[in-house]
Amino acid sequence: MQDFPGTYADRGLFVCFEGGDGAGKSTQSGLLRERLEAAGRTVLLTREPGGTPAGAEVRRIVLDPATGALDDRTEALLYAADKAEHVAAVVRPALDRGEVVVTDRYVDSTLAYQGAGRSLDPAELEQVARWATADLRPHLTVLLDLEPSRGMGRFTARDRIEGESLEFHERVRAAFLVLAEADPAHYLVLDARTPQDELADQVWARVEGLLP
Amino acid sequence: MQDFPGTYADRGLFVCFEGGDGAGKSTQSGLLRERLEAAGRTVLLTREPGGTPAGAEVRRIVLDPATGALDDRTEALLYAADKAEHVAAVVRPALDRGEVVVTDRYVDSTLAYQGAGRSLDPAELEQVARWATADLRPHLTVLLDLEPSRGMGRFTARDRIEGESLEFHERVRAAFLVLAEADPAHYLVLDARTPQDELADQVWARVEGLLP
Repeated sequence: MQDFPGTYADRGLFVCFEGGDGAGKSTQSGLLRERLEAAGRTVLLTREPGGTPAGAEVRRIVLDPATGALDDRTEALLYAADKAEHVAAVVRPALDRGEVVVTDRYVDSTLAYQGAGRSLDPAELEQVARWATADLRPHLTVLLDLEPSRGMGRFTARDRIEGESLEFHERVRAAFLVLAEADPAHYLVLDARTPQDELADQVWARVEGLLP
Repeated sequence: MQDFPGTYADRGLFVCFEGGDGAGKSTQSGLLRERLEAAGRTVLLTREPGGTPAGAEVRRIVLDPATGALDDRTEALLYAADKAEHVAAVVRPALDRGEVVVTDRYVDSTLAYQGAGRSLDPAELEQVARWATADLRPHLTVLLDLEPSRGMGRFTARDRIEGESLEFHERVRAAFLVLAEADPAHYLVLDARTPQDELADQVWARVEGLLP
């Protein structure tokens, strides 16, 4: 398999929100959409996993407690399939139309949750995820960083992933930070405990400068 | 991702039937099971896709016409997920118990159908499939070779894959033959037009010598 240097769309703008559960990704995604639309931009707000009909079916298989224990490779490949369909059917076409795509989770979540969190070789896992997405990368990833203990206070264990241990979520958080530190030109790391409006201002300050 | 030299189980015996639709794989799998059981062996008869509960769900997504067009990478990753679960939950545990595992389709079907049949880079596709299975390979793959026009006469188009063109199925056939010719020590190529009992004799002659 070839190396993956990263591919960035020529048209449109691709923005991703990442972070642990309860960090406020969906709130900030929605607030960013509002500002973009107020600025006259066409916005596609989407998510992984489950941003396509096939992806929603895949998400159901992975998260349904009735599925029982899945092999780690199985889980990684199902998430990769969701990702492939999401890029091919949703993200790439919208970017080709010149739109702003805002996604709640993307490849980094795969790397953080399945790579840092479980038993798989992170380098191999990354190659599978990059292959799935034809290595299309966000122009900007906003990492809403939060200590897992705080995040975990915001929800009850709803599914197989969120029911993992605090130590698991601490490894996930560290993995997100490593990814952000390796590529500061494409990342914005924010403290998720900041009030929502201030966070939205900080996101907008960075996104506004990237608009095509 | 590392190179994949092939891994063969130390215990048990792993036999795979491959070939186009209508070549008689399920008939020959069943006849082999009968002979193995008559010889006092414990046999696990299984299949891909769909040999596990999660795999059956994946198979349903891929083959259901209601799913609509799937991106080629999505389809390949879904089949790879099915394969990962099948190896981890079914094939490997049975081999570790010293049993004979007989599967109707395995990695070669992925390589032939998604590689030769569609638009993906065959080398990349192979790496995904080998990663999914931790590169566990059958001790013997029996290829039931048949001209697609004959095979296609035996069924009506039941799903998205079988509804493909004759030319597609001819490319699939050629891909199976290339795989077999590259590794004769682990393949037995038989003419699927041979009467069933004679085929079963030819399969048994080869399998009997491999029994642990």
